Amino acid sequence: MKIIGEKINGTRKRVAQAIAERDAAFIADLAQKQADAGAAWLDVNAGTMPAQEPDDLIWLIDTIQGVVDTPLSLDSANPKALSVAVQAVRKTPLINSISGEAERLEGILPIVAAHNCQVIALAMDGKKIPESSAKRMEVIQGIMAETRKAGVPDSHVYIDPLAMTLSTNVQSATIAFDTMRAVRQEFPEAHLTIGLSNISFGLPARSFVNRYFLALAIQAGLDSAILDPLDREIRAAILTTQLLLGRDPHCLTFIRASRKGAFEKD
Amino acid sequence: MKIIGEKINGTRKRVAQAIAERDAAFIADLAQKQADAGAAWLDVNAGTMPAQEPDDLIWLIDTIQGVVDTPLSLDSANPKALSVAVQAVRKTPLINSISGEAERLEGILPIVAAHNCQVIALAMDGKKIPESSAKRMEVIQGIMAETRKAGVPDSHVYIDPLAMTLSTNVQSATIAFDTMRAVRQEFPEAHLTIGLSNISFGLPARSFVNRYFLALAIQAGLDSAILDPLDREIRAAILTTQLLLGRDPHCLTFIRASRKGAFEKD
Repeated sequence: MKIIGEKINGTRKRVAQAIAERDAAFIADLAQKQADAGAAWLDVNAGTMPAQEPDDLIWLIDTIQGVVDTPLSLDSANPKALSVAVQAVRKTPLINSISGEAERLEGILPIVAAHNCQVIALAMDGKKIPESSAKRMEVIQGIMAETRKAGVPDSHVYIDPLAMTLSTNVQSATIAFDTMRAVRQEFPEAHLTIGLSNISFGLPARSFVNRYFLALAIQAGLDSAILDPLDREIRAAILTTQLLLGRDPHCLTFIRASRKGAFEKD
Repeated sequence: MKIIGEKINGTRKRVAQAIAERDAAFIADLAQKQADAGAAWLDVNAGTMPAQEPDDLIWLIDTIQGVVDTPLSLDSANPKALSVAVQAVRKTPLINSISGEAERLEGILPIVAAHNCQVIALAMDGKKIPESSAKRMEVIQGIMAETRKAGVPDSHVYIDPLAMTLSTNVQSATIAFDTMRAVRQEFPEAHLTIGLSNISFGLPARSFVNRYFLALAIQAGLDSAILDPLDREIRAAILTTQLLLGRDPHCLTFIRASRKGAFEKD
């Protein structure tokens, strides 16, 4: 289970402020903490207007790479910003993201292919998210046809089946789980990823919804996720689910984490 | 998801003492609290020697039925105690349990059939628990042949796939999940149940193991479990998992439980 650390995201107020003020210490601290918590990638989202985005992304990348060597997840829908950013990173990045939208595929897929990147592919076409798992699979099949045509190996594609909030559709999680199982069946070399925060939007006790969603998703085939690696309950959910699914030989990771206080109350 | 309240069990020291001293107030309190917490059945296990067991069971049943009308789960391997106990209950009980063992089937199945009871069937034959899911399914197939022959409808059978501790076999949970999925496939009318406490035996942070085991098991098809209905974390796990599996229309049960403090820290 690989974690994409979500915290360096300019759509968050405090991060936006740090970007605007070029507060390198704040960003460096977020990078260091997420890397220490075991993030496999650090997501980098400048969250700024297209004209400003390349400069901001480069500043973020330089700042982060000044303290950690964790690979980055370049989070932008802007081909111009991405083509500048892939030149600035020291390690091959994950590109976040493409979708079934032709414009996005045409703009971003060549960058992914040229730099041998990994890429997140959202199961949506245009601005609408398909209601059913079957319709999402159609979109995913279309994307996979394009990534294959561009020479991107299936193993470099991280499919995000999308999980909308349960508060507007109580089947949101089951549609995501069904899509995950279908992807595992049809594209066994591809990976799965998901953003954790949407599922619980508008509900109380969001942390409970997020942590059990993650556990059930891992059982359905999820092997990476965009989340806060500093969240103790989320880390406990991952450790325990990996244990229960037989992926922790002799329970050693679980037992060691427990000794380090992973399951103690805050 | 139906709960079999586990607390009135004479193998627990404090309960054994209450039985020995005929401390009705203690037992009545355990019964009332579990019923209030929504238990569908209350398990009743005298935990005493065969000669003493019928008397103790009858006292327990009378004591419990003095305060609640929740159906009982008569927990005994002793046909004599069970045949007395089924006469004493006001509502048709669940019998806990039969197994593939011929002696147990011959002694208990006629009681189940004669009184139209529901029955828990353990996926074991003799004293040994089969290592693989396939072997457990063989035992279950044998039991189902016997229950059908005795005229017990599949819908009255609660199959317990058995979950041994992960600390001696890290595949214990996946074997149980695989067995659950196979039962759902082959015996769609039958129910599934599980005892929650074994899986985490010998491990630290047992409560985490138990709660995520339950969530993953519900996703694998579990529809009842023997557990402590007063455990807040377990109740939160059930509420959240049911929500995520699309079984809580308009999220109402979850939202109401949240308003009542179900997700607050102790």
